Amino acid sequence: MFGSTFGNLFKITTWGESHGKGIGVVIDGCPAGLPLCEEDIQTYLDRRKPGQSRFTTMRKEADRVEILSGVFEGKTTGTPISLMVKNTDQRSHDYSEIANYYRPGHADRNYDIKYGFRDYRGGGRSSGRETIGRVAAGAVAAKMLKSLGIQISAYTLSIGPVAINKEKFDLSEAENNPLYMPDAEAAKKASDYLETCMQEQNSAGGMVECMIIGVPAGIGEPAFEKLNANLGKAILSIGAVKAFEIGDGIAVAQSDGLHNNDAYCADEAGHITKKTNHSGGITGGISDGCEILFRAAFKPTPSISATQESVTRAGENLDISIKGRHDPIIVPRAVVVVECMAALVILDAMLAGMTSRFDLVQKFFRELY
Amino acid sequence: MFGSTFGNLFKITTWGESHGKGIGVVIDGCPAGLPLCEEDIQTYLDRRKPGQSRFTTMRKEADRVEILSGVFEGKTTGTPISLMVKNTDQRSHDYSEIANYYRPGHADRNYDIKYGFRDYRGGGRSSGRETIGRVAAGAVAAKMLKSLGIQISAYTLSIGPVAINKEKFDLSEAENNPLYMPDAEAAKKASDYLETCMQEQNSAGGMVECMIIGVPAGIGEPAFEKLNANLGKAILSIGAVKAFEIGDGIAVAQSDGLHNNDAYCADEAGHITKKTNHSGGITGGISDGCEILFRAAFKPTPSISATQESVTRAGENLDISIKGRHDPIIVPRAVVVVECMAALVILDAMLAGMTSRFDLVQKFFRELY
Amino acid sequence: MFGSTFGNLFKITTWGESHGKGIGVVIDGCPAGLPLCEEDIQTYLDRRKPGQSRFTTMRKEADRVEILSGVFEGKTTGTPISLMVKNTDQRSHDYSEIANYYRPGHADRNYDIKYGFRDYRGGGRSSGRETIGRVAAGAVAAKMLKSLGIQISAYTLSIGPVAINKEKFDLSEAENNPLYMPDAEAAKKASDYLETCMQEQNSAGGMVECMIIGVPAGIGEPAFEKLNANLGKAILSIGAVKAFEIGDGIAVAQSDGLHNNDAYCADEAGHITKKTNHSGGITGGISDGCEILFRAAFKPTPSISATQESVTRAGENLDISIKGRHDPIIVPRAVVVVECMAALVILDAMLAGMTSRFDLVQKFFRELY
Amino acid sequence: MFGSTFGNLFKITTWGESHGKGIGVVIDGCPAGLPLCEEDIQTYLDRRKPGQSRFTTMRKEADRVEILSGVFEGKTTGTPISLMVKNTDQRSHDYSEIANYYRPGHADRNYDIKYGFRDYRGGGRSSGRETIGRVAAGAVAAKMLKSLGIQISAYTLSIGPVAINKEKFDLSEAENNPLYMPDAEAAKKASDYLETCMQEQNSAGGMVECMIIGVPAGIGEPAFEKLNANLGKAILSIGAVKAFEIGDGIAVAQSDGLHNNDAYCADEAGHITKKTNHSGGITGGISDGCEILFRAAFKPTPSISATQESVTRAGENLDISIKGRHDPIIVPRAVVVVECMAALVILDAMLAGMTSRFDLVQKFFRELY
Repeated sequence: MFGSTFGNLFKITTWGESHGKGIGVVIDGCPAGLPLCEEDIQTYLDRRKPGQSRFTTMRKEADRVEILSGVFEGKTTGTPISLMVKNTDQRSHDYSEIANYYRPGHADRNYDIKYGFRDYRGGGRSSGRETIGRVAAGAVAAKMLKSLGIQISAYTLSIGPVAINKEKFDLSEAENNPLYMPDAEAAKKASDYLETCMQEQNSAGGMVECMIIGVPAGIGEPAFEKLNANLGKAILSIGAVKAFEIGDGIAVAQSDGLHNNDAYCADEAGHITKKTNHSGGITGGISDGCEILFRAAFKPTPSISATQESVTRAGENLDISIKGRHDPIIVPRAVVVVECMAALVILDAMLAGMTSRFDLVQKFFRELY
Repeated sequence: MFGSTFGNLFKITTWGESHGKGIGVVIDGCPAGLPLCEEDIQTYLDRRKPGQSRFTTMRKEADRVEILSGVFEGKTTGTPISLMVKNTDQRSHDYSEIANYYRPGHADRNYDIKYGFRDYRGGGRSSGRETIGRVAAGAVAAKMLKSLGIQISAYTLSIGPVAINKEKFDLSEAENNPLYMPDAEAAKKASDYLETCMQEQNSAGGMVECMIIGVPAGIGEPAFEKLNANLGKAILSIGAVKAFEIGDGIAVAQSDGLHNNDAYCADEAGHITKKTNHSGGITGGISDGCEILFRAAFKPTPSISATQESVTRAGENLDISIKGRHDPIIVPRAVVVVECMAALVILDAMLAGMTSRFDLVQKFFRELY
Repeated sequence: MFGSTFGNLFKITTWGESHGKGIGVVIDGCPAGLPLCEEDIQTYLDRRKPGQSRFTTMRKEADRVEILSGVFEGKTTGTPISLMVKNTDQRSHDYSEIANYYRPGHADRNYDIKYGFRDYRGGGRSSGRETIGRVAAGAVAAKMLKSLGIQISAYTLSIGPVAINKEKFDLSEAENNPLYMPDAEAAKKASDYLETCMQEQNSAGGMVECMIIGVPAGIGEPAFEKLNANLGKAILSIGAVKAFEIGDGIAVAQSDGLHNNDAYCADEAGHITKKTNHSGGITGGISDGCEILFRAAFKPTPSISATQESVTRAGENLDISIKGRHDPIIVPRAVVVVECMAALVILDAMLAGMTSRFDLVQKFFRELY
Repeated sequence: MFGSTFGNLFKITTWGESHGKGIGVVIDGCPAGLPLCEEDIQTYLDRRKPGQSRFTTMRKEADRVEILSGVFEGKTTGTPISLMVKNTDQRSHDYSEIANYYRPGHADRNYDIKYGFRDYRGGGRSSGRETIGRVAAGAVAAKMLKSLGIQISAYTLSIGPVAINKEKFDLSEAENNPLYMPDAEAAKKASDYLETCMQEQNSAGGMVECMIIGVPAGIGEPAFEKLNANLGKAILSIGAVKAFEIGDGIAVAQSDGLHNNDAYCADEAGHITKKTNHSGGITGGISDGCEILFRAAFKPTPSISATQESVTRAGENLDISIKGRHDPIIVPRAVVVVECMAALVILDAMLAGMTSRFDLVQKFFRELY
């Protein structure tokens, strides 16, 4: 339960802090026989690595993943898969200043109180580099899901005040701009907005949306392990996320039953579909076979160069200006993190779902095993 | 993991469906020696029970809780506390109609697919009655938290288009109106709005807010067990919730770093506080000692009498009109559910937090144990 | 983790103490569609209930099980199955004496220290009645295992100095004598031995053996979740068990590799078997397809009428003689408990084993789901 | 649950196989502020490393541990501690022979069936090298326990037919001979016995005993998480263990209540002790403050050079003789593994025990936190 383990059947445990020797993850419960190589994982890591555009930190982190265990002759063996990314850009810094005060919007003070002291070199465990373990593990989950016919796509919905035009939504466009926005025009405007932020030594927030196609109906558990609850936990556990919406999300509070309910209809063959998808593909915590759609709100990067009021550990007021290489926005690099966390949740729920029906359990052992 | 267990150190397991013999919960891990009687729990259950106003179903459910184990001579013994509420209003109904079709906005079809069949009597496990177990357990958690100086208060923020006026916020008022709105004027307007909904055989959604005072800084775990992530999971696991926000929530996406960061300041004695609380009392997943504030969006009650399009299990289209006694809105009865889920999360995190520092573990065994 | 939950995919949570309102168990994760009625469970409970012979306490406990949830129209629904047995023989006793001193061989003092006080009425949670929840849940697991072709049989191997003659082993005989010994002659001798014990106001220990037939090879997980490790934990968690052996057990310490290794051989069709089964059906923590065989050593009933030295809570020496209706031996009634704990472990491991191979997961979703 | 994670509050996850890049462990939940350096861990690893005597394999494995995360300025930070030992002695072997047949007494065939294929290079995950992760993590637990006044000592009780003389028991002697026997004379005899085994290309089994001093009364949980049950699981999860005994162990089956019960007595100050310790320091699953004493039976090393009957994967009979460098006995190198697994269980139970009493929880937050 101590924070660094996620999932039940496809269980991951991450480790590492921003300025230690590396960041890693151990995946336990990955079914045996899945073809897997470092490139499968590297592709995902490259999407979160810094230095991709002028809106991401210029830190040069190669972030090369190494498979340390659990893969033999190109396939997973069923035993733990240990993945590691070494921290290479550990310049010798003078951290004495940052060690002494608390950065607003960061967890510095909370760590000091919780643990009695903290690793003050750049955020330690609360650094965004912690997400490397999530992405590496999520890449493996996503690969397996693809083999099961499931596709997960996250993208940027808005940056500061600039939102995409839903009518111009083009998923393929998201890969063409460094902001991962599925609307070229909005991407251009957002780009301009970020330039202004940077000039003002300020930072911006934004929204990420995630679309999951191909999940069969019946996935997720009632009560506390609802599929949406686990997606929510997964996404809200990403450092800067302050809100999570599924389907129509916050708008349902102002809707009414007649409009919010998704009517069913059947075609002539008796095949049942929903006429709308206000629910975002999940009702009662269980997938209904439609597209799963959720959103997350990311706060602006807390590290900014503009002057801020803060205090020292000893309780003295001071003005600070955070130096260093910081992203003016977290969102573009977080898109792949959202996608990976979703993959971990969906795969875990699908594996758990294999035991929901006695007749299928019986058939499994009689016919497949 | 199978849906009905929640929490790690203060762990609850709920059971029961709407038309079975009863609903219950087993609490494992409740520290010994807490004074506890049925009335402590009944007070909370009475807040969610139907028949409190014309906006809640007229079903007569006494919902009396019985303590079956774990309490001796008025105090918890440290062993499992089993709580049960018998289902008393089980009229003999003809369910053949409802058994045959899928209600829009409900999980009927998902259950059929997941489990191969379902208990079609009124929702079964996906019924709102499932929350009885949450409230009964949450009442115990809330009682313990009070002894630790922590107060949790949830209330209705909005119903359909009617929101409270933040400037007229008066928490004590929430207890004076059946909608649990901390603004008498808004409660009146919301009441009128609900009348209209009922006349139109329709239903309404709404927002619940929850305020937690007294949680010390340092509670919550990094990475996946962030306090906000667990609050989010807890709240999103309540049947009708479609969005969760902490602090400024969804608004952070349009904010900027300078405004969103909470500046620190120290008084002359060196006591550190925050000038604002955009974070909602949690940063990096760990409490900062300020008020914790979050919100949840509830969808409109899916059971409405107005005509809706649906299908039979066999895949034939039909129009339905759901008979029976249904709340036109879920929110007022959900307020106590939100409060109880929050209590479970906070207490569990606090117990877990007892082991975060080696020096305190050592002191515990040397000085207290 | 707090003691009362067992299993991961077929997860049970027990509750109740000896002199409370009842004893119960909640099963979460039972696949839907398993035919189940109270009689399926009662059959197992009747094997552990007192009053079956002159060697078991004469307390009259009907121990009737009631299914409170999770079963609809004669089949499990996939949602939690709540089972309860009411405590009916709660005579009004004067417990002031027992409340005041610590019974040797019991956990009285440990509970007082751990929890600050205890339910002193007959053992509370540490009473043998706690096993009712295990047996009720195990009966459900055993029923499912039978449908998967797996048969679990436990029986008494020895009572005090009287062991069965392995050459006269006859499993069907175990059902014919109240001691559950698969050797009529040994049962007679053991019976005589117990008579002597009773006359001397003393009690006896014994060994239980359990044989599991039909578990396919490949069940169990490497490292910490070895099948034998989980069987061991399950059995050692039964109140009076002080040793656990699998296969040749303790004798392996004096064996050598040539004798202890089970040689493989293949018949003409290439079907592979083992020539011996020193391993007891499990190697490397994973089943090998052979009969699984393990044993447990039970200590003598600690409650005896003979005079014993003890102390009061206040730290004064005194001699005690425990009055009341106590079994002179735990073993015969524990046989079904062993069987049920084994069923829980095996079923849980089989459900977990469904995700071990990627090709089978893929086939499951393509062909069965 | 998938085999590689152990513990709840002090939770470890191990990874790695015998011929991969390395072996490692991630510790999550280690309290912050514990002084820790690589040497603390190396000391323990050196006790299990090969090449210590002529009775352990001559493979040259440096087995140097590296701390990759979770320690800053010489103290644990409260975040995951990642430990790695690189595999250095990976000679290029021709494994085509071993890949083709199943070694008796090994898990080769079980892995093939469970996972569809296996890493055939020297045992993979089922190799004894898997215990490196256990020892590295256990060393950290043991260090913390020492600070809490708890000392764990394991030693060899017997090798094949040679047992120590209990009357000559001298714990300090265990460190003087490579067999870790606390009786110099027995060590000499056992040494001779092993010489004979080696000449006969055979191997020997043995018993390990473990003594734990300083655990306060009240540690362990009732029902399924009994302290003895968790010790049993921990020890039975070590590859070659086939039996586990606590206190008088298997002998209790032949004992009687009068002899097996530990009488209490009080001194003049009212301080309560037990006159004997047949229970091995645990009753009802909870520690009683006395020395905890348990034993484990290890089977003979399955890899022997003597000719054995086996089969190929394809189901053809063949005679094999396992080449290579194998220990003629597992026991001496397993002693530290037993000690480390015990440390993990005891520490986890102590941390969990911090929440057992409400009054202490309240005091913790009022006085310590």
